[in-house]
Amino acid sequence: MEKIMIINSGSSSLKFKLFDNEDRQVLASGILERIGLSGSRLKLKYGLDKKYELTQDITNHLQAIELLLKVLKELDIVTDLSEIKGVGHRVVAGGEYFSRPVVIDNDVIKKIKELAELAPLHNPANLNGIKAFRKYLPQATAVAVFDTAFHQTLPEENYLYSTPYEWYEDFGVRRYGAHGISHEYVAHEAAKLMGRPLTELKLITCHLGAGASITAVKNGRSFDTSMGFTPLSGLQMATRAGDVDISLANYMMKKLELSSMSEMVYLLNEKSGFLGVSGVSADMRDVEEAAETGNKRAQLAIKLFYHNILRYVGQYITEMGGVDGIVFTGGIGENSPETSEEIMKKLAYLGVTLNETENKKRGQKTIISGPDSAITVMRIPTDEEYMIAQNVWEILDEKA
Amino acid sequence: MEKIMIINSGSSSLKFKLFDNEDRQVLASGILERIGLSGSRLKLKYGLDKKYELTQDITNHLQAIELLLKVLKELDIVTDLSEIKGVGHRVVAGGEYFSRPVVIDNDVIKKIKELAELAPLHNPANLNGIKAFRKYLPQATAVAVFDTAFHQTLPEENYLYSTPYEWYEDFGVRRYGAHGISHEYVAHEAAKLMGRPLTELKLITCHLGAGASITAVKNGRSFDTSMGFTPLSGLQMATRAGDVDISLANYMMKKLELSSMSEMVYLLNEKSGFLGVSGVSADMRDVEEAAETGNKRAQLAIKLFYHNILRYVGQYITEMGGVDGIVFTGGIGENSPETSEEIMKKLAYLGVTLNETENKKRGQKTIISGPDSAITVMRIPTDEEYMIAQNVWEILDEKA
Repeated sequence: MEKIMIINSGSSSLKFKLFDNEDRQVLASGILERIGLSGSRLKLKYGLDKKYELTQDITNHLQAIELLLKVLKELDIVTDLSEIKGVGHRVVAGGEYFSRPVVIDNDVIKKIKELAELAPLHNPANLNGIKAFRKYLPQATAVAVFDTAFHQTLPEENYLYSTPYEWYEDFGVRRYGAHGISHEYVAHEAAKLMGRPLTELKLITCHLGAGASITAVKNGRSFDTSMGFTPLSGLQMATRAGDVDISLANYMMKKLELSSMSEMVYLLNEKSGFLGVSGVSADMRDVEEAAETGNKRAQLAIKLFYHNILRYVGQYITEMGGVDGIVFTGGIGENSPETSEEIMKKLAYLGVTLNETENKKRGQKTIISGPDSAITVMRIPTDEEYMIAQNVWEILDEKA
Repeated sequence: MEKIMIINSGSSSLKFKLFDNEDRQVLASGILERIGLSGSRLKLKYGLDKKYELTQDITNHLQAIELLLKVLKELDIVTDLSEIKGVGHRVVAGGEYFSRPVVIDNDVIKKIKELAELAPLHNPANLNGIKAFRKYLPQATAVAVFDTAFHQTLPEENYLYSTPYEWYEDFGVRRYGAHGISHEYVAHEAAKLMGRPLTELKLITCHLGAGASITAVKNGRSFDTSMGFTPLSGLQMATRAGDVDISLANYMMKKLELSSMSEMVYLLNEKSGFLGVSGVSADMRDVEEAAETGNKRAQLAIKLFYHNILRYVGQYITEMGGVDGIVFTGGIGENSPETSEEIMKKLAYLGVTLNETENKKRGQKTIISGPDSAITVMRIPTDEEYMIAQNVWEILDEKA
């Protein structure tokens, strides 16, 4: 029984999903946590509702994958490792070099390493996962799927900044975007839900989670997206500020007596957003609770978040010359009826109506606008692993 | 014959306009240039088409105003200085303190000085003009009109950044906007041109010049605006980058081996925008010429500028839940039919139509959309001095 493994490798964690190539269902999924730290462990779900958990020292990604493969065999999820025909790796930054999934070879590894400059925390961690699987599953086709690749179709006026052009030519300063795998997945699902070909649709996909971005998807291609050179910009996020006036960095560095711009970027990445505005929590659920009890800053953080979403939705409607469908996805997008309701109310001027019953259904794929709505608004749970799996299957099919 | 003087004082220049209080016409206007530099001079227009020019060393703003008042008497424009009943000063940064024009006293001067932190180049220069007139025209009512004041009506979700809330509370980090005097003036003129009360209109005013900003004016009040904490952000401008991902500053500081964030802010203020993208000129007319001869970077700079305008127009349409009128003003806004045509074409999806004949009229107050257009699009020459004069007249009337 042939299988593929999908991997999202972080600096101290490794998420995995094992798919059956025949029926394309998930056989097992889980996470290896605290790799290289104390209290590392493996958590795994398989079968209908079976769970397995093991706490054991895991020094590095190599050990993590050795352990994972061993456990998969012990639990009879995999009989022989040769059953795993492909491994799909999520890679955060593909720069302008990778506009589609690629089979990993030495050149690809070298390039991912070079591109680490654009994602210093993520690409090296992704490479750890890639290298470990090359060692233990050398026969499997390894595929890199890039979170930026979907956005490589942006027209140049949408990806360039108005900074000196040499900054782009010589140093690659431009908008790269992120969450491309998620935006692409939900765009495909939206077209199915609407019963129309994706190539004929103008969509706006709102991926709202701890990280958040909004993408204009025109005729199936990413046309504009809110994250920029890095995932710091765009919307307010859990701890990220999103868009700010760059002059305030200079001003605040003097006020706070910071000695480097890196410290400022840290504050904008880690101490801003929901956390920084509310002073309560980086988690919107906590902020919503505090807001309900009358906490003014919590209320403000939520108002700012809604306003941020509306800004980009409005921008993209006009950039595309209208919109057929809007999708809410990601942790907040899938589970916050308040957020979608608020945005839909503001779009009433375009003829958007709300289906209150459907909108209250959390975590379900459903149309949340009314039957008479001029724009179809949808809630669609994202599935980045399934999107990566589809890419791997396509490549395996081509090779076959 | 009573008069008022309107002053826009820069670090080495001083622009003035003298108005007749009776018929509210301009009696004289001009500029004192290169104050404190070699080759300083006074240029003055008066009467129907009379011109006067004098090249003479001018050491400081005090000398400049002494000279100006002397020449006004010599040319018989003013018989006695006591005729000048009021002086209106444009002041760039009013912070959260000034939300309307005020009569200048010692407290106001002190406050403008304090607010220089938000406009280090402008407020001290504005103060030089204020102090000089206090010396030579002590009897005249001096009024400060702030370029940020109009934007003090922004709702908090539109003026706050998602940075730590303490940055706002303790250090005043927020969106202040700019060009408020111009946006307010053209909004009033637009309502007249549309024959509807300003208080019932949703307008978008595009002030497009070497500096550029767009404002959503809802029911006569500034509702959102593209410039932020400083005039660096928002649209691409002559030499300013407008919105960028703040992370690219950190990245490029390393690449260019800059030792301070101030150097980076200088590059984003002075070496970006039309100049930085095109590599040709900071002046859009030169860039358009180069674009016509096939210069790719010049073409790109223009595309980016159009895209920038469209982004904000789209955002503000959705924020306000629709729009009744759009205004183009400022050097580019008043004189570039290409710019207005391009934006109007992109708004065709909302039912905007173009009146080609009217659109080609440069520098004239006119409706440039077709009679069937769902949104009234206008070209309105701005007149910041007249707006300031109106404020001074109102204050003189109140005192009378």
